[in-house]
Formats: sequence, C-alpha cells, structure tokens
Amino acid sequence: KYSQMPRSIGGLEDAIDWPAFRERLPDLCGKDVLDLGCGFGWHCHYARTKLARSVVGIDLSENMLTRARESTDDPAIQYQRLAIEDIDFPADAFDVVFSSLALQYVERFDLVCRKVYRCLKTGGTFVFSAEHPIFTARAAQDWSYGSHGERLHWPVDQYQEEGLRHACFLDDDVVKYHRTVATYVNTLLACGFRLSTLDEPSPTPTQLKRHPEWKEALRRPMFLLLAAIKSDMKQT
Amino acid sequence: KYSQMPRSIGGLEDAIDWPAFRERLPDLCGKDVLDLGCGFGWHCHYARTKLARSVVGIDLSENMLTRARESTDDPAIQYQRLAIEDIDFPADAFDVVFSSLALQYVERFDLVCRKVYRCLKTGGTFVFSAEHPIFTARAAQDWSYGSHGERLHWPVDQYQEEGLRHACFLDDDVVKYHRTVATYVNTLLACGFRLSTLDEPSPTPTQLKRHPEWKEALRRPMFLLLAAIKSDMKQT
Repeated sequence: KYSQMPRSIGGLEDAIDWPAFRERLPDLCGKDVLDLGCGFGWHCHYARTKLARSVVGIDLSENMLTRARESTDDPAIQYQRLAIEDIDFPADAFDVVFSSLALQYVERFDLVCRKVYRCLKTGGTFVFSAEHPIFTARAAQDWSYGSHGERLHWPVDQYQEEGLRHACFLDDDVVKYHRTVATYVNTLLACGFRLSTLDEPSPTPTQLKRHPEWKEALRRPMFLLLAAIKSDMKQT
Repeated sequence: KYSQMPRSIGGLEDAIDWPAFRERLPDLCGKDVLDLGCGFGWHCHYARTKLARSVVGIDLSENMLTRARESTDDPAIQYQRLAIEDIDFPADAFDVVFSSLALQYVERFDLVCRKVYRCLKTGGTFVFSAEHPIFTARAAQDWSYGSHGERLHWPVDQYQEEGLRHACFLDDDVVKYHRTVATYVNTLLACGFRLSTLDEPSPTPTQLKRHPEWKEALRRPMFLLLAAIKSDMKQT
C-alpha cells in the first residue's frame, strides 16, 4: 500500500516535506552522505544527481532495499539493512547525514543523535524531517469530524506524555514514538549541534495546484524539519 | 481581573512558565537587564534579588507600571512606558534581555528581534516565553467540550495562517498575533542569535500539588520558551 501513496507514485515532488527538505540540504557535490531510513532510495539517488561522492542508505526493510537496489544501479550508492539505532559508523565518516520521515519510528532519538554527531565531520550537517509532535501526540492521528463527516479541527491531547504510540497507517498497526518539539531540539543542542533552521513544512503552491485537497495540511503542522551543524564551537 | 489570576496572586511561583524561565536565565549578578512587558515588575524585582546591576522594565500599561513602581522601591530598577516594538536602546546596552508572556501581543516579532540583538552585548542572552503557537492558532483558544461539558481535547486549526487573532481573555477582547514555532525560531536565527534551548513549559510537580487542576495543561503545549545567545560567530 505504501507504494500507492502519492509520495511513492509521484516521487519526491509529491512528498509534502520535500521542497523544504531539499532547500535545507547543503551543497552535496563531492560529499560523503548517509541517509537514515532510505526507503526506496530516492533521497540517495537525489544526492548522486547533486554529485555526492558516496552515499550510504540504511533501512530496516529488506523489501524497500530490494526495490531501492533495483531502481538505482549506481556503484557509489551502498545500501545496508540496519536499524537506525544500530548505526556504528566511524568518527568523521560523513559530510552530510539526512533522514526523511523516519525518526518518529525510533525510540532512542538521543542515542541516534549522539551517533550522528560522532560520524559527522566537524562542520557537517544533519538534516531530518519527522512527523510533527502535534501529529504524533494522539495515537489516533486523525481529525475530529462533525456529524456530516466534515473535518472540524485537528485534536491534540497527551502532548507532554512522550513515548510509544500505536497508530494505524494504511490499515496496518504501526508503532511510533511521540516526542515534544522541545525534546527534538534540546537533544540536538545537548549533543553539541548548532541549530541552523526549524521548519514545519506545508504544501507549496505548486503542490497545491497538483493536489488541491492538500490545503487541509495547512490547518495543522504535519512535519518538523530540523537542520543542524556539528559546530567546532564549544557549548557555552 | 488580571490581578485575580493565580500568577497575580501567588506571584511568580504560580506562573506555569516561571520555573523553566528561571532555569534558562543566565547568572544575573552584576548584569544590566531589560524586561520587555514587565507588568507588575516581578521579573525586574527577581533580577535585583539575583544582584543585577541595573534593570529597565518597559510596559505599555500605565496601570501596571504604577503598581510596579509602588511595589518595588528600588533605585536600580527603572520603569518606562513604552511599546515593545518601540524600544530604541543603544547598541551593547544590556547583558540580558527577557520577556515573559508578552510577545504574542507584538505584531512585528522580526523587528523586536533585531532591536534586541542590537542592544545586547556580544555573548548576551535573550530569554522569552510566549503563548505556544498551538495555543494561539485558533482565535477561540479553548478546549473542545463533550456533551457533558468535559474537555475532549485541544483543537488546532489555521496553524499555518499567521497574523491577527481576536481572542477573549478574562472577558475582554484581546488582540494577539499567531506565529508558527518555525517563525519564532528562524527569526531569532536569521538575526544572528544562536539558539541555546527551546522549552514548552508545563506545570512542575510542585505546582501540580498546589493546583491539581493544572494537570490539564499537560494535554497540550501552552507556552514556548526560547533562550538564545548573541554569538560572536558569524552565521555559516
């Protein structure tokens, strides 16, 4: 079913977070890049079109990796089956680490953050999008509906109660981890990252023209997109 | 009516944002401090108990300033009637600028940010709390209620639509300005600030013991608290 979603059919251009995500990526030319939760490998492929020197894509799903390998026959892209929490790359291995909409599935964001910090070179960039905490707060992850099925508003509850959420995604049970905006940001900063930007991407005018129904996404924040730099400055 | 609210009766200890706010303030000893929207002057007074050298408190309300002057007879605190947008202090005038729950009333946060940056010394700190964007998104600023008057959840709508909100506070019409979390953070960063911490303060266990009904505040983020430093590092 995942392969029937707009983002799977239309490619990155049909992912709401993508235009902002792309804008926050640094110049990838000649860079060594790591993609956490690479899925079908589209971000890996994009990095290569921007002349990244090497790309490592990791994902836990063998199905997705198989499709990624089939669709991108590029010796400079290396796919590995690995949980994001289990990465163990050497220090200073990458110039850029990114992750698109995968980190809400990770229980220990603090651990991942420390590992990313370690494997980044000084001055390197960490860019990631995740489902917005306003989106993950309630396990139901759905609108409030009126008596005629109309969308009344987006309900928020249990916001400060971080942890496991049993959500439903494409009719399947999915386990997610809710964290507050504060936790995402302060965990990055506590690791030594300097925050470059914080975005809450919503559909662009171009995307709204192609998918007018996406205007509903403007009613509440759907994604959180953070870009941070491994600074050589000590925290003060 | 404002003077009948818990925060007005119980003092700072009964303000939900205060314990986190206090924790994020730097050492104030010997510092020159500016308080934007000082109200009754409690934060100014606090700064002096922490041995701040001088404190300037500004507020638009002459009533509040009168009460502030009555309650804090301290020649090192200077109160001025001034809108926050209209501050025009010289460069490098302050070590610390703070503001508690006032900036949601300000239309031009970008302008205030630039002025605060200018009047801070290099290495100086800007700490402010504001009503959380999840709180200000809908003008109604109230819960969704069930048929028996029970609080169902906190409704979010119009999140990406920044600007004016005609809210109701203590039976009076109040004009507020809704901004996204992204706008608060990126405006700071664009001015040259380095973000130190982002908090979404909720009641502490001590506060919950005194006000058990405040546990409702855990259901949605109520305040945003940002601390930032005027870094001597150029943005990269």
